[in-house]
Amino acid sequence: MSTNKGAGGAGGGGKKKKEVKKETKLGMAYKKDDNFGEWYSEVVVNSEMIEYYDISGCYILRPWAMEIWELLKEFFDAEIKKLKLKPYYFPLFVTENVLQKEKDHIEGFAPEVAWVTKSGKSDLEAPIAIRPTSETVMYPYFSKWIRSHRDLPLKCNQWCNVVRWEFSNPTPFIRSREFLWQEGHTVFANKEEADEEVLQILELYRRIYEEFLAVPVSKGRKSEMEKFAGGLYTTSVEAFIPNTGRGIQGATSHCLGQNFAKMFDITFENEKGERSMVWQNSWAYTTRSIGVMVMTHGDDKGLVLPPKVAPVQVIIIPVPFKDADTTAIKGACESAVYTLNQAGIRADLDARENYSPGWKYSQWEMKGVPLRIEIGPKDLANKQVRIVRRDNGTKVDIPSTDLVEQVRLLLNVIQVNLFETAKQKRDACIAPISTWDEFTAALNDKKLILAPWCDEEEVEKDVKARTKGELGAAKTLCTPFDQPDLPSGTVCFASGKAATKWSFWGRSY
Amino acid sequence: MSTNKGAGGAGGGGKKKKEVKKETKLGMAYKKDDNFGEWYSEVVVNSEMIEYYDISGCYILRPWAMEIWELLKEFFDAEIKKLKLKPYYFPLFVTENVLQKEKDHIEGFAPEVAWVTKSGKSDLEAPIAIRPTSETVMYPYFSKWIRSHRDLPLKCNQWCNVVRWEFSNPTPFIRSREFLWQEGHTVFANKEEADEEVLQILELYRRIYEEFLAVPVSKGRKSEMEKFAGGLYTTSVEAFIPNTGRGIQGATSHCLGQNFAKMFDITFENEKGERSMVWQNSWAYTTRSIGVMVMTHGDDKGLVLPPKVAPVQVIIIPVPFKDADTTAIKGACESAVYTLNQAGIRADLDARENYSPGWKYSQWEMKGVPLRIEIGPKDLANKQVRIVRRDNGTKVDIPSTDLVEQVRLLLNVIQVNLFETAKQKRDACIAPISTWDEFTAALNDKKLILAPWCDEEEVEKDVKARTKGELGAAKTLCTPFDQPDLPSGTVCFASGKAATKWSFWGRSY
Repeated sequence: MSTNKGAGGAGGGGKKKKEVKKETKLGMAYKKDDNFGEWYSEVVVNSEMIEYYDISGCYILRPWAMEIWELLKEFFDAEIKKLKLKPYYFPLFVTENVLQKEKDHIEGFAPEVAWVTKSGKSDLEAPIAIRPTSETVMYPYFSKWIRSHRDLPLKCNQWCNVVRWEFSNPTPFIRSREFLWQEGHTVFANKEEADEEVLQILELYRRIYEEFLAVPVSKGRKSEMEKFAGGLYTTSVEAFIPNTGRGIQGATSHCLGQNFAKMFDITFENEKGERSMVWQNSWAYTTRSIGVMVMTHGDDKGLVLPPKVAPVQVIIIPVPFKDADTTAIKGACESAVYTLNQAGIRADLDARENYSPGWKYSQWEMKGVPLRIEIGPKDLANKQVRIVRRDNGTKVDIPSTDLVEQVRLLLNVIQVNLFETAKQKRDACIAPISTWDEFTAALNDKKLILAPWCDEEEVEKDVKARTKGELGAAKTLCTPFDQPDLPSGTVCFASGKAATKWSFWGRSY
Repeated sequence: MSTNKGAGGAGGGGKKKKEVKKETKLGMAYKKDDNFGEWYSEVVVNSEMIEYYDISGCYILRPWAMEIWELLKEFFDAEIKKLKLKPYYFPLFVTENVLQKEKDHIEGFAPEVAWVTKSGKSDLEAPIAIRPTSETVMYPYFSKWIRSHRDLPLKCNQWCNVVRWEFSNPTPFIRSREFLWQEGHTVFANKEEADEEVLQILELYRRIYEEFLAVPVSKGRKSEMEKFAGGLYTTSVEAFIPNTGRGIQGATSHCLGQNFAKMFDITFENEKGERSMVWQNSWAYTTRSIGVMVMTHGDDKGLVLPPKVAPVQVIIIPVPFKDADTTAIKGACESAVYTLNQAGIRADLDARENYSPGWKYSQWEMKGVPLRIEIGPKDLANKQVRIVRRDNGTKVDIPSTDLVEQVRLLLNVIQVNLFETAKQKRDACIAPISTWDEFTAALNDKKLILAPWCDEEEVEKDVKARTKGELGAAKTLCTPFDQPDLPSGTVCFASGKAATKWSFWGRSY
């Protein structure tokens, strides 16, 4: 058993710690900078977020992941209810006929659709698809429900599972065959209202990433090639993983325009008594968000959780010395948990007697808990507790009377620090370029490339073709709303034509 | 537009009301006592709970249903979290091999399992099942996670969709091919703890039905024939629908014993260092609960919602007279909504100008809102509001200053009244019988039959066979925990052997 003093380091003194780790297989085998892919798998499994399942591309979400999902959902659901979104649940299944109604849409999703063809031992009359997304599930009924301008806006949201039977590189949270999401589907009388909502929702997505997950994102618009299949335009929040040099789409808010309205005949009688076609949006964020957070903050000790989404914000660990008053130490720990819980802080006690304090330190570091509190005989005598930060390992002894105040302060500091650190790392990767040579150099250098572009679809196709390779081709990530100055005469890095905007380019997940 | 006085009745004066209804097709075409099946379909559709979907047996749950589901979920999820249940999400899919591991279990579910055999245009290597329930999805991993007695109890819950591709009589909420539920799966070191939890959960289910949905239920144990496929014993809460004379299983809490533990090799090292087999439970309630509530309380005007689960508890309708101060009336209505909302009461304003007050009365009656508040010029002058109860139509004028207090009181009274009324109706259907002739007479008379039984499986099979017919065979519903006295010498109504218990018998959903 390690001592209070010795336990000041992360898991007791060097040698002792190694023994404990070896004994329990608690350490990480991979380093984030050496083998990012294996490191990621190890973190999500060892932190008990994920269990691999016996069907490839399907994963078990354990409480350490689901509790984060519930915290995000609590925030987002309350926000969209303020925007008058109503909860719905539409079926998992859709007929082939309806699924194929919007041509671009089905072209985008067809290769990934899972089909049910049998029940029990009988063949179904016709195959039935499992929703890859619910536009075609919902919109025939929107057509039925909407008659007059008084039925607008119609605002539906559902929390559900969707299935996209992808075959490339399944990765927990990031790319899985079934995932959880919310999908909002809204209908308006005019484009202005639709446009406005697209951005309201995008701002909520930014808040999920930046305020909750402490992950910096760029808001922007997708290119024509990358927009939602069948939609008018797509906005997104885009994150970036410096270790792999890949962009990752965080969430999307689409304006569908009137394409689906045409196909599904969704019209209304306007105030002048004329039939008019509606304007529609759809938008979603998924459990992928958790994976982006893991990739952004995790380190060689495991997960690092932003306090706002940590299922346990403070873990309290008794450090009973030999001959110390263990009852008093346990009492002080229980009192600290109680005091913090009463103050609305998610604190928990690790009172397990079959593990050493050092082992517990390692385990809770692996699980990414923002603050550890250690209470030993010396702390008891001095009416203090020792607080250790997960994000940077710093330790501080604080008087027990200041517990709530200091913990609250530190949790806020960690939340800000994680975001600022991630933002600095991300910003350091942004490479503004102007020529093709600079572009390929930056791509090889794992940069988040900001390039002047002519915004022509053919040029994006061409860039994709020219950068094809083992690591995947480069493509546009988004055209950020926050545009640097574009002096007249600036040319497209790829085509040499006049550039019309700055866009982010890179490889992506 | 109807007047304040005329509007005292449900929807204005007789003639006027009929005209409005005809014009808007708002009335109910069927009566509960005349054609229960059509009445039920009409209520769930017209109240905007359900939309029929183009795949048979699948239904769209609209906000008026989903908001009830969310209220039930909020209660239940908080309660099971107090019992230390943790949120999980396991995959929708399960391989054929694993699904078939527990023989009795798969025999019970096989005919209803939906199979995915294709993705995109490719055939899958092997068909994959969609979960009809998640025992076989979860338990291989329980085996992996549980090593020592310290890993117990393990307590998992997930909120999700499941699919049972039934072919008999699809009915919204009651019998659908996809439904929403929670499924709890727990693992204990011994039978005592498992037994105890079975009843803790059953009590929560009773509370959902009796305290929230105001539906009286009987707690009891299922017969061997009716228990969960593969389990040790099943407890349930059973409701009864007097109109059809059918019992309906409200929710089930199963002790699985050690059957699944054997098949999936779920063992632990106990405190003595020996390998021991775990004890397991599983338990679930579904969106069916909403259907039972609709059937129990609905009337010829539509839905009747218990206040505790009503998405809108109080609807406030301005009744502007000709020449009246409509601005002042609207202001009084808005003030009432605000005051009630501030007090935590779910109140809403129907300010639509294109509908008459009478039409609105009918629509909100159709939707089952517990209280209607009318505010017209006379109410304004007298500083009062008129409150109309949905459950019994009574009206009362109360001073505006007493608004919150009176509304709160009335909502409580309605909640109690709905339960007591339903309980009286249900109790009046209970027919204690002792002979076969009494049994068949009571069955024809749509009774909830309480019969002394020998508790032999062969006898239940025999009763089923002898009562087969168009309406379906009779079977045991449950053996209620609350047992009447069973004098020695009492014989089984069906076999003439010694009776060992009183059981509920009847047709069922």
